[in-house]
Amino acid sequence: MGCIQSFRQCCDQPKNTNVRISLPAVCCIWQIAMIILFGIFIRYNEESDAHWIDHKTSNNISSNIENDFYFRYPSFQDVHVMIFVGFGFLMTFLKRYSFGAIGFNFLIAGFGLQWALLMQGWFHSLDPMDGKIKIGVESMINADFCVASCLIAYGAVLGKVSPVQLMVMTLFGVTLYAVEEYIILSLIHARDAGGSMVIHTFGAYYGLSISWMLYRPNLDQSKHRIGSVYHSDVFAMIGTLFLWMFWPSFNSAIADHGDGQHRAAINTYLSLAATVLTTIAISSLSQKTGKLDMVHIQNATLAGGVAVGTAAEFMLMPYGSLIVGFCCGIISTLGYIYITPFMEKYLKIHDTCGIHNLHAMPGVIGGIVGAITAAAASEEVYGKEGLINTFDFMKEWKYMVPTRQGGHQAAGLCVALCFGIGGGIIVGCILRLPIWGDAPDNSCFDDEVYWELPEDEENNPPTVEYNNHMRNKAVTESNLSMERRQN
Amino acid sequence: MGCIQSFRQCCDQPKNTNVRISLPAVCCIWQIAMIILFGIFIRYNEESDAHWIDHKTSNNISSNIENDFYFRYPSFQDVHVMIFVGFGFLMTFLKRYSFGAIGFNFLIAGFGLQWALLMQGWFHSLDPMDGKIKIGVESMINADFCVASCLIAYGAVLGKVSPVQLMVMTLFGVTLYAVEEYIILSLIHARDAGGSMVIHTFGAYYGLSISWMLYRPNLDQSKHRIGSVYHSDVFAMIGTLFLWMFWPSFNSAIADHGDGQHRAAINTYLSLAATVLTTIAISSLSQKTGKLDMVHIQNATLAGGVAVGTAAEFMLMPYGSLIVGFCCGIISTLGYIYITPFMEKYLKIHDTCGIHNLHAMPGVIGGIVGAITAAAASEEVYGKEGLINTFDFMKEWKYMVPTRQGGHQAAGLCVALCFGIGGGIIVGCILRLPIWGDAPDNSCFDDEVYWELPEDEENNPPTVEYNNHMRNKAVTESNLSMERRQN
Amino acid sequence: MGCIQSFRQCCDQPKNTNVRISLPAVCCIWQIAMIILFGIFIRYNEESDAHWIDHKTSNNISSNIENDFYFRYPSFQDVHVMIFVGFGFLMTFLKRYSFGAIGFNFLIAGFGLQWALLMQGWFHSLDPMDGKIKIGVESMINADFCVASCLIAYGAVLGKVSPVQLMVMTLFGVTLYAVEEYIILSLIHARDAGGSMVIHTFGAYYGLSISWMLYRPNLDQSKHRIGSVYHSDVFAMIGTLFLWMFWPSFNSAIADHGDGQHRAAINTYLSLAATVLTTIAISSLSQKTGKLDMVHIQNATLAGGVAVGTAAEFMLMPYGSLIVGFCCGIISTLGYIYITPFMEKYLKIHDTCGIHNLHAMPGVIGGIVGAITAAAASEEVYGKEGLINTFDFMKEWKYMVPTRQGGHQAAGLCVALCFGIGGGIIVGCILRLPIWGDAPDNSCFDDEVYWELPEDEENNPPTVEYNNHMRNKAVTESNLSMERRQN
Repeated sequence: MGCIQSFRQCCDQPKNTNVRISLPAVCCIWQIAMIILFGIFIRYNEESDAHWIDHKTSNNISSNIENDFYFRYPSFQDVHVMIFVGFGFLMTFLKRYSFGAIGFNFLIAGFGLQWALLMQGWFHSLDPMDGKIKIGVESMINADFCVASCLIAYGAVLGKVSPVQLMVMTLFGVTLYAVEEYIILSLIHARDAGGSMVIHTFGAYYGLSISWMLYRPNLDQSKHRIGSVYHSDVFAMIGTLFLWMFWPSFNSAIADHGDGQHRAAINTYLSLAATVLTTIAISSLSQKTGKLDMVHIQNATLAGGVAVGTAAEFMLMPYGSLIVGFCCGIISTLGYIYITPFMEKYLKIHDTCGIHNLHAMPGVIGGIVGAITAAAASEEVYGKEGLINTFDFMKEWKYMVPTRQGGHQAAGLCVALCFGIGGGIIVGCILRLPIWGDAPDNSCFDDEVYWELPEDEENNPPTVEYNNHMRNKAVTESNLSMERRQN
Repeated sequence: MGCIQSFRQCCDQPKNTNVRISLPAVCCIWQIAMIILFGIFIRYNEESDAHWIDHKTSNNISSNIENDFYFRYPSFQDVHVMIFVGFGFLMTFLKRYSFGAIGFNFLIAGFGLQWALLMQGWFHSLDPMDGKIKIGVESMINADFCVASCLIAYGAVLGKVSPVQLMVMTLFGVTLYAVEEYIILSLIHARDAGGSMVIHTFGAYYGLSISWMLYRPNLDQSKHRIGSVYHSDVFAMIGTLFLWMFWPSFNSAIADHGDGQHRAAINTYLSLAATVLTTIAISSLSQKTGKLDMVHIQNATLAGGVAVGTAAEFMLMPYGSLIVGFCCGIISTLGYIYITPFMEKYLKIHDTCGIHNLHAMPGVIGGIVGAITAAAASEEVYGKEGLINTFDFMKEWKYMVPTRQGGHQAAGLCVALCFGIGGGIIVGCILRLPIWGDAPDNSCFDDEVYWELPEDEENNPPTVEYNNHMRNKAVTESNLSMERRQN
Repeated sequence: MGCIQSFRQCCDQPKNTNVRISLPAVCCIWQIAMIILFGIFIRYNEESDAHWIDHKTSNNISSNIENDFYFRYPSFQDVHVMIFVGFGFLMTFLKRYSFGAIGFNFLIAGFGLQWALLMQGWFHSLDPMDGKIKIGVESMINADFCVASCLIAYGAVLGKVSPVQLMVMTLFGVTLYAVEEYIILSLIHARDAGGSMVIHTFGAYYGLSISWMLYRPNLDQSKHRIGSVYHSDVFAMIGTLFLWMFWPSFNSAIADHGDGQHRAAINTYLSLAATVLTTIAISSLSQKTGKLDMVHIQNATLAGGVAVGTAAEFMLMPYGSLIVGFCCGIISTLGYIYITPFMEKYLKIHDTCGIHNLHAMPGVIGGIVGAITAAAASEEVYGKEGLINTFDFMKEWKYMVPTRQGGHQAAGLCVALCFGIGGGIIVGCILRLPIWGDAPDNSCFDDEVYWELPEDEENNPPTVEYNNHMRNKAVTESNLSMERRQN
């Protein structure tokens, strides 16, 4: 404990938020490293290479429409919107951190997807013939998925870290993700098309652990900036809605061609619809006069999409999806009301966006639902071929049975949890070092620190400082009046 | 008349806007009902079921790309965006009702699509073999379409009703829609791919009739809140643009595979382009110095998409689409200038978003254009096969001829009108009961009633109250000064 | 020079911004002209005509999914979003010109796409059999592309021209575009799938030349309105992100079916990711304390997409795309820091949105990269068939070789530059005539001139006038106090 204490002391030096050297250096050097690694390792796969025309002939492919591009590109674009507009705008709700929310989201994603192509490529699509990674549209979707887990983690530390810290967090996050994904999907052979475990559970616990390590006991100095203004809440709804609408694409993007993608989209569509109703119900119940809370609408309505991720491509049945959505809307909203304050007060985990309620709990539920649905699968429901196809009981897994698959799913969930918590603690330690340029406790949640702001502080949007200034002015004036009256 | 009078008196009791019991109860109970009904009735169709692999073999389908998912999913996602972001943000124009616009839009759509899957399923896709409704991507599009009609209706009563009333309105709206759609499309065999009649005419008159029944003579107590602020108008343009851009997908989403979808998209694209120009022309003409009015740009530019809905999949010809768009831009803009004030003053119909100009009139025009185009169809233009294909002159309708089809189209329009007006009056009566928690006349168009608002009322966005407060303060101060001077 | 001087004097008469006659007249008359020309010339192509069913049989097409609609419609919709939301919102950054940015963008695009269908049709898809232009989904994409060049040009003159001028600028811009495109793609046989030369270089120099001709020496009277407020910057990020996310669709929309579209999407995706990092690096470096500038993030992050336009469908290789993106992020950001002020001060070119940095320079780079990549193409990399396919070495070009293709690409770039600069100067002269209703120098960048604004000037969003007003008030009050004290 003494050791930890001294480490803490070493970390708790006065903060210097000047990132003029560190940020450009990290961006440029890492980008150059990416170029070199891409030059060595990454090539087009056979569907995006100019040899496709030969490949088509030799594989008897009748039409260009059989190119995987046409199966997955619309879903890819939807996922892409979720990553950049969805996650970006969802985090604009803070009254004075919209630039940081969108801008750093953009930075994390722009870097993360390149590193993810490499890391995932090494594990999944290394061509043994020439030692190259072959990429195509599915690689781009997977890279976006990987980035999603880092953006989820960003939600927990929003407003409290520097862009350099975010780059470091993303570097390690993507690395851990790729390893964890390889273990869960390839070694354990769990299925996780929508990433309840691989993306959401991992990402959320990774972020929460980092937030725990970076706990700021004096954060209440910035408390007045944790909150929204009217229009920042409307901006955040842009994020919410694009996430909500395109979640069916997210969960179906890398599902099996044909019925797999089709079913995943339907299940997600239904689950999310049910979540909206229960979120509104609980939000209204939780307030004295039944008023709704925008925080719940912005976040908890999405929980159904998270929780149905793993099972979306299974025969979860339409009513099954509704049940999952129904429960998650309730649990997630209750999380915002009770668990987030509890975690902050007693566990010393400050979770800016409430990712524990939106990603962590629904992700774990999603893993469990997936395990149960897999264990309950039968030839009657899926058909003989359908069962093999859906669960990929082929090659070395051809003797696998559904009940055992359920166990593997559960094992996958545990791996995601371990990587999230373990990785987060280690990375959190690294991020505590006093070299990353993060803001002091009284300047958190403020774009002023890392952004040139337009000169409109005098009235739009209001900052507490301004209000205070106005109040002081009023006080001064009334003092003057007093004085005058006494005259 | 005495009877109506006493009903009115009964309804006009003091309002209680506390929905803490009613809203959660309605949401939860109805959602549970949905789960039960989905459990009993709803299953995957053959293209989204795991048996697809068997179905493919037995039906000699060569590739997964033939799954309807790949024909319709991109259009579905566009429609989905229109429903949630398009309609939601279009209604954010009010200075102090953006939360209600987006949030209740979300609630209506989330509930409505589930109920629509059931209602439409019972009428259209009940499998006689097992009594189950089989759903796929086309069902999801149709459910979204059905929800659109309820959201159109919401536009007429925006800011004047409680969320509980909206749920009731949606329940009945979806039910009426499904019956009306069955009569128009199946019994009468009218064609209506883009829903000019089925969606827009029905939805608009449904909403207008409800608004008529709920007429508030003292609404001018909330008059100062009917209006926009600069940024709320920009938010509304998000809605406008997403509706405008994706309307080609809306009108082509359930059109015939191949040329049907292709043609519907082209016609809608052209019609909307023409509407933009005439809207701007009339808007500029209507003001003394030629200034443009944002209300027109936000709404009337969309009229061309509504009016081309029925005929979009026919051989309307590119210039035909332009003519339709040209006329609708003029009519719709004139509607905003002359008809909306007239309706409010003389017909006692207050139409918050002007849906009469955007949906009702263009919808009726669309029905008429569809009837004329159908009646004028010929084998020369369509080809023998093409004519059969486009108008679905198959099975029991194989002896149908274009001229008669024109008559059926006109009959369909009448059915939509009757259901809209009749249904709206009945539902409006129900909604007048003093049990739904709607706001009093002086609190309409105010998010304060149903939402926990962020504490920024002191300067952003401005409310009239605040301005008054400032003025009063100024007055007080100047009084003080006066007083002092007199001293 | 005397002649130019007297022309200038003739043009520099007092401005009358009343467009109540001219704007409606231009909109209506031109729209009627469109209808007539569409009636004479434009018909559906074989894939969108009802005869498709016959065409399918006679051409042995096995399935409706082979209709070009399914290859290109998702990309078309993405491009459509870029044109209307992307370009529209990107320009909302000015504190008091958001209506003009979105609204006039809408007007230009609505008119431009119709005229583009005609102009491009005459050059590219005139059916020699019946003298009609046959349109389909690819025509719509090309029309949107053509409009993009006019919207780029709008960026240079944003806030300084009237809607009537914009219509004239679009009329000529589309005409020039169609000619230039015909010369570059058909006569010179350069390849330019993403339009680095055809769209961006042409559009940017067209706009810059016009801005040069319309130079206002006294523009500093409106200087206080050139700048953003907090929320207008967030709105602009909506534009940035939708452009950024959908750029892969832009560059792949009209590329070859199969590997061509697939590869173009991958290259663009990678290039843009690299641009984000270098933009942030240079932006941070350029400020004393390493703070980021929103202008750079909003614009320079997109340069990689522009610069990879021509080469996107070639075998540029993933690392090649990263290198292009890397360089363009740096160049574009430096452009904002050094070149834009230089151009304004010394070249008398005021470039409101900085299109020289976002479109002109990256466009030229894109042309050069395309020429080099084409010249370096080899059968080894592309395969024999792949080379023919990618560069379209067919029919009269079957003896073309890659090195010569490189020369043709370079020639194409020159043509684009000449048309842009030459056309811009001529059109700029026309637009200087004092008949177009543009704003006087002290009312630029102000929506007040052409829009009915909501009455919220008293506090949101702040205008300098208001601030001044407040300051004056404060001064008055303190004077009063002084006076009183003296009493």
